[in-house]
Amino acid sequence: MSVIVQKYGGTSVGDPTRILNVARRVVATQQAGHQVVVVVSAMSGVTDALIKLAREVSSGGTPPEREMDMLLATGEQTTIALTAMAIQSLGHKAVSLTGAQAGIVTDGLHTKAKIRDISPRKVQHFLKEGNIVVIAGFQGETDDGQTTTLGRGGSDLTAIAIAAAIKADLCQIFTDVEGVYTCDPRVVKTARKMDELSYDEMLEMASSGSKVMQSRSVEFAKKFGVPFEVRSSFNNNPGTLVKEETMSMEQVVIRGVSIERNQAKVTLRQVADKPGIASQVFKAIANAGIAVDMIVQNVSLAGTTDISFTLNKDDLPKAQKALEPLTDGLGKAVSAQDGIAKLSVVGIGMRSHSGVAAKVFEALSLGGINIQMISTSEIKIAVVVDEDKITEAANLVHEAFGLSAE
Amino acid sequence: MSVIVQKYGGTSVGDPTRILNVARRVVATQQAGHQVVVVVSAMSGVTDALIKLAREVSSGGTPPEREMDMLLATGEQTTIALTAMAIQSLGHKAVSLTGAQAGIVTDGLHTKAKIRDISPRKVQHFLKEGNIVVIAGFQGETDDGQTTTLGRGGSDLTAIAIAAAIKADLCQIFTDVEGVYTCDPRVVKTARKMDELSYDEMLEMASSGSKVMQSRSVEFAKKFGVPFEVRSSFNNNPGTLVKEETMSMEQVVIRGVSIERNQAKVTLRQVADKPGIASQVFKAIANAGIAVDMIVQNVSLAGTTDISFTLNKDDLPKAQKALEPLTDGLGKAVSAQDGIAKLSVVGIGMRSHSGVAAKVFEALSLGGINIQMISTSEIKIAVVVDEDKITEAANLVHEAFGLSAE
Repeated sequence: MSVIVQKYGGTSVGDPTRILNVARRVVATQQAGHQVVVVVSAMSGVTDALIKLAREVSSGGTPPEREMDMLLATGEQTTIALTAMAIQSLGHKAVSLTGAQAGIVTDGLHTKAKIRDISPRKVQHFLKEGNIVVIAGFQGETDDGQTTTLGRGGSDLTAIAIAAAIKADLCQIFTDVEGVYTCDPRVVKTARKMDELSYDEMLEMASSGSKVMQSRSVEFAKKFGVPFEVRSSFNNNPGTLVKEETMSMEQVVIRGVSIERNQAKVTLRQVADKPGIASQVFKAIANAGIAVDMIVQNVSLAGTTDISFTLNKDDLPKAQKALEPLTDGLGKAVSAQDGIAKLSVVGIGMRSHSGVAAKVFEALSLGGINIQMISTSEIKIAVVVDEDKITEAANLVHEAFGLSAE
Repeated sequence: MSVIVQKYGGTSVGDPTRILNVARRVVATQQAGHQVVVVVSAMSGVTDALIKLAREVSSGGTPPEREMDMLLATGEQTTIALTAMAIQSLGHKAVSLTGAQAGIVTDGLHTKAKIRDISPRKVQHFLKEGNIVVIAGFQGETDDGQTTTLGRGGSDLTAIAIAAAIKADLCQIFTDVEGVYTCDPRVVKTARKMDELSYDEMLEMASSGSKVMQSRSVEFAKKFGVPFEVRSSFNNNPGTLVKEETMSMEQVVIRGVSIERNQAKVTLRQVADKPGIASQVFKAIANAGIAVDMIVQNVSLAGTTDISFTLNKDDLPKAQKALEPLTDGLGKAVSAQDGIAKLSVVGIGMRSHSGVAAKVFEALSLGGINIQMISTSEIKIAVVVDEDKITEAANLVHEAFGLSAE
């Protein structure tokens, strides 16, 4: 008998009818001969309603994070109780457990706690008794009994972490998409759902704009070797399996094309090419709480260099302000530009196949698309282009690598 | 510095504005030089909404009690977080604790758990740090970490129990009435709010229809000697203090008059006067889950006796059905009657004052009101009269004992 962890997001449990649908799916999984753990999010809309209440009692101020965690944790707790009831109303055994009761121990960083440890004794006990175990996603408890929440993507993380702790055979992430696609189907009409990909490919896709899952959950799954499947909660189609790299995966040169809009670029020109300059720049940016994506530095020319980096367009004004006090000492000029987008080509096969970069550049040149920045990793090539060319760029590259559905 | 526990019911915390009002009141108490623990209920309406959801996912069946507890516990958890936020937004330190976190350990009887133990270590720790500690009423956790709820009147019980555990100087029960009255002011216009009464008097008043608090909370307070005050959350008037009996209380013969409508009476006539008959009758009634109030048995007459008891009118059909299989063996006839009401006169002073019963009967006879049953305890005389005479009866007795406001 294998053990399966299933995770359902807020939309999948958005009302009593949908909760009953989830219950039926869970029961069917059990009846197919598996032990089943279910991780659920708050019903869609509930978290927003709670945040609204929090603002109202905080007279305009920011609600304290410890109490936000206490408040938001009720959202998932409501769903686990209702889901367990729904399963029982179908005639099957079920128990609900809060994050704390499921043994999820976190650090004390309220609203964005990290999982420190999991004691799955209780989960295993209830499974052994024949129950479907329903666990509240997104939440945990500190060593000294403070309620915490895990931040964005927290419910996925709960599912993956529980799967790791109980050595589940598979973790299924049910969502509102069919799986991971070779490219965003709204951009590339012929995009194809992938049957499988490796953790690293999934990570590169995720960090490159394919927002199916947060990177932290994928990293956790990679670290503990938890295979997981991303699939739709609205039908029974198989989704995309994410797992350890296998030999056969190597034969596929390119998995997919990922795009990210709303990017901006900052360039520092003729910066003195000496140690400590880059660290000054990015310390200032980090202190302003801004996440930087690509960083490119060209080779030195006459003792100065140009440093460029990309960031989310919304963070551009903050970044400019953070750099102001530095500009005098740094170089000739800081230039900023938005209206750009990033296209990434991802695939573990590219490590052993030369010519991938050339093929990307050739495809883009066919469309007369100018490449503004290039950055590469072992399994990714990322380029920055004008935002209004990104759809054309994605289709050209997707086509060039033969990724389209047959 | 004294320690005060304040309890606010669902109406008092019914929306963000009211929660802010509670926060101001709590802060004022702290600023008057006290350490303050606050126990809150679910916001009014929340519990009903949760029960509705539970029914919807249970496809018409009864939701399982373990999961009902998990679900309903979110109601109070929401309120504690919001209340702690509101206090902090006023610039004061506050932390929220669930029942489990506050150390409330219960038995495993879901939906009507009993408190087994309280470990107030965490409450005391946060108080010492200068926090106002906000605790979820109505809930606890079993030894092995199952979420439980305490059933009706559970939040009052939490407040009294926490007050006992931390040896609070006073427990204030804030509610939507001004305190305990000499009689229901809707019945007797001249009824007066009492300044104080003893636990036993409060118990007799509670069990006789003055539904300000459930008897279990009063019993708990009596057992652990917790003085408590019942008062309004909508103004600053002092309420009614309930505490150990004192000498001065003895001088007051009668505290108040309590009435209970919607009663019914069952009489078994000419029952064989031998051991075991009464137990058969009341075992059958208890097995049907019916609570019986007064029980009266007259002296035996020619080897048979009459047994009468009162119960809630709604339970009458169930009681008749439960007695059916017994009637043949029991006696000549079972008669049932509704449309009756109970009037109780309560006061510890009556122990040492003769003539109280006579005064009650005289007052009723002045109104030509027939007494159908009489039952007495050390500090109570209860009579059953026609329901349509109860208002007149209450006013006559209230007047006879000089209870009216001056």
